[in-house]
Amino acid sequence: MKKQGIGFIDSGVGGLTVVKEAMRQLPNESIYYLGDTARCPYGPRPEEQVRQFTWEMTHFLLEKDIKMLVIACNTATAAALEDIKKKLAIPVVGVILPGSRAAIKATKNNQIGVIATAGTVKSEMYPKMIHEKDATAKVASLACPKFVPLVESNSYHSPVAKKVVAETLQNLQTSGIDTLILGCTHYPLLRPIIQNVMGNQVTLIDSGAETISEVSTLLDYFDLAEKSDCSEPAERRFYTTGSTQLFKEIASEWLKIEEMSVEQAKLGF
Amino acid sequence: MKKQGIGFIDSGVGGLTVVKEAMRQLPNESIYYLGDTARCPYGPRPEEQVRQFTWEMTHFLLEKDIKMLVIACNTATAAALEDIKKKLAIPVVGVILPGSRAAIKATKNNQIGVIATAGTVKSEMYPKMIHEKDATAKVASLACPKFVPLVESNSYHSPVAKKVVAETLQNLQTSGIDTLILGCTHYPLLRPIIQNVMGNQVTLIDSGAETISEVSTLLDYFDLAEKSDCSEPAERRFYTTGSTQLFKEIASEWLKIEEMSVEQAKLGF
Repeated sequence: MKKQGIGFIDSGVGGLTVVKEAMRQLPNESIYYLGDTARCPYGPRPEEQVRQFTWEMTHFLLEKDIKMLVIACNTATAAALEDIKKKLAIPVVGVILPGSRAAIKATKNNQIGVIATAGTVKSEMYPKMIHEKDATAKVASLACPKFVPLVESNSYHSPVAKKVVAETLQNLQTSGIDTLILGCTHYPLLRPIIQNVMGNQVTLIDSGAETISEVSTLLDYFDLAEKSDCSEPAERRFYTTGSTQLFKEIASEWLKIEEMSVEQAKLGF
Repeated sequence: MKKQGIGFIDSGVGGLTVVKEAMRQLPNESIYYLGDTARCPYGPRPEEQVRQFTWEMTHFLLEKDIKMLVIACNTATAAALEDIKKKLAIPVVGVILPGSRAAIKATKNNQIGVIATAGTVKSEMYPKMIHEKDATAKVASLACPKFVPLVESNSYHSPVAKKVVAETLQNLQTSGIDTLILGCTHYPLLRPIIQNVMGNQVTLIDSGAETISEVSTLLDYFDLAEKSDCSEPAERRFYTTGSTQLFKEIASEWLKIEEMSVEQAKLGF
């Protein structure tokens, strides 16, 4: 029987932070990744449009016969997870619930911060999910619209990145939070800078990495996990709607893969 | 609609380490706990008998109309999870897979230790689950038959406990592992002593605590989680087949509950 892969979708390269954890924690699993780089960022777009784009990405990967779909983008999760989960027969996982759960697990003073795109912050999904679980938690949200473009342009190591992050997070530094959710899958690429600005006393939650624990739980629960004794090697295929060259530059450095196949994807536009 | 609870079963008080995390991470959830203290320890018993006892506990809690069952005992998970999961209509969760997953996530040198009861070690479930996910991991298992009686007799703070733990783990100290799974839900009560013997460079994995992340994932996935806006308060009911007095002493200290109801349970013996 042919090995079925797990599908990952994101507005661009951010979901690669989720893929990196998948490659580490689930080395037997085949991975199909689609980044809608040509239409990135999703954050400032209207919810209805984000939902439509997310469905287009979903259809593209369903044709690859995936066994599970990970919406590795917070903005798309907020806009479309519920709808897509209801309509697909395979398990569908978003990144907001795993991040919320991990923050509740990690916080000691019950004060949690969330940084995310404007779309995710506007959806109020993080405070909603956290409060459904623990009504006593205090949640401070902050939109960081400048972060995604820093990552997508491959300038997340630059001095400009340091300056933008420091300025954006200034008000959060004195807010009393002890836990900060990186509520956008692009942000872990800025993690060292964010940690430096917030200080070591603040625990950063990488919602993407937490998502892989959930993926692994559901793979096991539904008996879909690939066993090590499978003779076929795991496949990793990457698709982008934008420049394959720029995608490859960022992805190969982040995932530490020298030889990788990046193909052009055409969605409905 | 009446709130449905989550059922937890264990050979004795060990599963309370799982309940403690449930109370912290899932404060809205009602909890029904049964400890088969009268027949503890399960570790040295034949697999067939452990399976029978686990089914008896399961039937007892199914009568309380639980919505999910957590087999909060490694020995019982190894012997009976697969069988029980197959036959119940509600989700059933064990403690071995969550512990295995967390160890793979935590290890940096891919050398993982497992301490557990004789029954769990003999079942080889931990090495099997870890190797199914990552064939390259090195796993060292060690049975610690003296640990459970230390906890059940409420002597886990004693100097004897320190001596027993140090002697038992002696060989593991030089094994090169950087991650150690506490593969028995009783062991987290000995955690400070175990950490002290193994040194701070070894990450201890509390398989019970990890199980709650899995419980939370499945509650959300199947839309079974209690929301904070539910008007009924969460219930916590404890049952034991042994001394309610001794159970209450250990449980109230461990869970930091002053007033708790512990009732006598009668199983099929």
